[in-house]
Amino acid sequence: MSLLSIDLGGTKLATAVFSEEGSVLCEERLPLEKRKGTAVGSLIATQVNKFLRIAQNDGHPVSSIGISVPGISYQKAGIVWAPNIAGWEAYPLLKEIEETAEGIPVTIDSDRACYILGEVWKGGAQGCNDAIFLAVGTGIGAGILVNGNVLRGWHDIAGAVGWMALEKPFQKNYANCGCFESRASGEGIAKLAKELLLDAKGYNGALRKQTGEITAFDVFEAYKQNDCIATEVAKQCVVFWGMAIANLVSIFNPQKIILGGGVFGPALQFIPAIYEEAIKWAQPVSMKEVLIEPSVLGNRAGLYGAAWLALQNNEK
Amino acid sequence: MSLLSIDLGGTKLATAVFSEEGSVLCEERLPLEKRKGTAVGSLIATQVNKFLRIAQNDGHPVSSIGISVPGISYQKAGIVWAPNIAGWEAYPLLKEIEETAEGIPVTIDSDRACYILGEVWKGGAQGCNDAIFLAVGTGIGAGILVNGNVLRGWHDIAGAVGWMALEKPFQKNYANCGCFESRASGEGIAKLAKELLLDAKGYNGALRKQTGEITAFDVFEAYKQNDCIATEVAKQCVVFWGMAIANLVSIFNPQKIILGGGVFGPALQFIPAIYEEAIKWAQPVSMKEVLIEPSVLGNRAGLYGAAWLALQNNEK
Repeated sequence: MSLLSIDLGGTKLATAVFSEEGSVLCEERLPLEKRKGTAVGSLIATQVNKFLRIAQNDGHPVSSIGISVPGISYQKAGIVWAPNIAGWEAYPLLKEIEETAEGIPVTIDSDRACYILGEVWKGGAQGCNDAIFLAVGTGIGAGILVNGNVLRGWHDIAGAVGWMALEKPFQKNYANCGCFESRASGEGIAKLAKELLLDAKGYNGALRKQTGEITAFDVFEAYKQNDCIATEVAKQCVVFWGMAIANLVSIFNPQKIILGGGVFGPALQFIPAIYEEAIKWAQPVSMKEVLIEPSVLGNRAGLYGAAWLALQNNEK
Repeated sequence: MSLLSIDLGGTKLATAVFSEEGSVLCEERLPLEKRKGTAVGSLIATQVNKFLRIAQNDGHPVSSIGISVPGISYQKAGIVWAPNIAGWEAYPLLKEIEETAEGIPVTIDSDRACYILGEVWKGGAQGCNDAIFLAVGTGIGAGILVNGNVLRGWHDIAGAVGWMALEKPFQKNYANCGCFESRASGEGIAKLAKELLLDAKGYNGALRKQTGEITAFDVFEAYKQNDCIATEVAKQCVVFWGMAIANLVSIFNPQKIILGGGVFGPALQFIPAIYEEAIKWAQPVSMKEVLIEPSVLGNRAGLYGAAWLALQNNEK
């Protein structure tokens, strides 16, 4: 028997078949291209059908399906809210995939829940009861494990750490996605670089010469060349990452904080500097105990977490 | 049968006998005066003995004892760390009271855990699975209920929200007790008023005329008279309280946040202003759902929580 794992992102769909022991048997990544609404649902259903058949033909039929979604999974209703997929304000994904799956059980959870569950199953949080996956990519969110269970809150919205207030006074542009996300996500990095460029009249470095929109990736490339604007952006982000991690440490007293998402990635080089910042702010006993580590599963953390969801179905 | 409840504070010891239904049958408050170390332990033991006898004589013998302590209760070891009681870095309170209690079961928990457990049992959080008691007094801490259980973290230190980083850059005086506590606790209020007084050369209001050390209480009294320094202190604190509450809302998606401790108290008048500040920063869906309310148990929240601990022993 095997597990079918789906990891939906804002721009891509990853599908994999796992053994129950956690080996990846086959895997595919597709761009969403311009799909929205039901077209995204249809693509998932197509991939489910295709990989159910592949697994069957390979002699390890799928016993259970897990799906990671980029937003909120309302567990009781089976409804998904995904802010970066148009038409997914209240998408009935569970019903749709259950119809496709013909009796094979389906479980859906948010990407941030899947990240930490994947790390607990096969990554850096194995053996942890209290651990946090801080995902910094286009946006920022956290999967938070409390006493062995994912923190969900009253209506499944817990972990929205991108909304953390870290610098007063309030600025209007925090209203869209929160102060921390606005300052230190991939989009925040690009935005700050562009702001600094406007002010740096005399600057004529790599970011000035760039054709097309500046991205966080460009900023990290420029940082490698000691670019002064990229260096300033990194310095400011390190403070925000350090403060946010300090807050999670003081509030949760976790064993581990795992850094992942597209930005960690290239920003992993800053872990020592982030640690130095966090230690200034955090409750000192909790800070001394916590480990801050990169994700070992990287961009497969969501796939591992979704496979773990599927495995739980088998064990029910 | 009845429950014996002990609420130890930094400066006082409250003792009460509760019925199992949650009525207070008798109660006493004693100042700790200059007691420290084992003298505090002896005072608790004396009160335990006295109230065991009183309850016995009144015809409702004590079946179980609960104790709330102002610091950290290391649950497995039975050891207490209480920063405001000299000599209580690792105090073996459980063993000491168990010896006094002669076979009656004893449970100890932190004050912040007791506050939220008391509110869940008989206060404003009845029926809640996800709720937070934010205690703002001399210091700041939170009792956090996650899916019906108190958030403890890896080593029982979770909830140290006084350490929340809310304003960069880091200042040296945050190192003692954290940024949020340093800015918006009772001590923080008094400190800010004193700083503003130093700068306000032309000011000749109530706080200038005061003999003796200025306290948060004095600041709230001056606020009633529209004192300009007290008004500025309140304004700054409202921003920090709003930001901190917003962070708890975004991270935990709770049903309720209950405000208590000595400062809430007089600062309860600012709840509408705090709400207006928090709503700017917090994850909007979670913010719309949460209720922000004063503690209905007031300075008895710890006693109720400790009585609930005792009740749980009975139900084991």
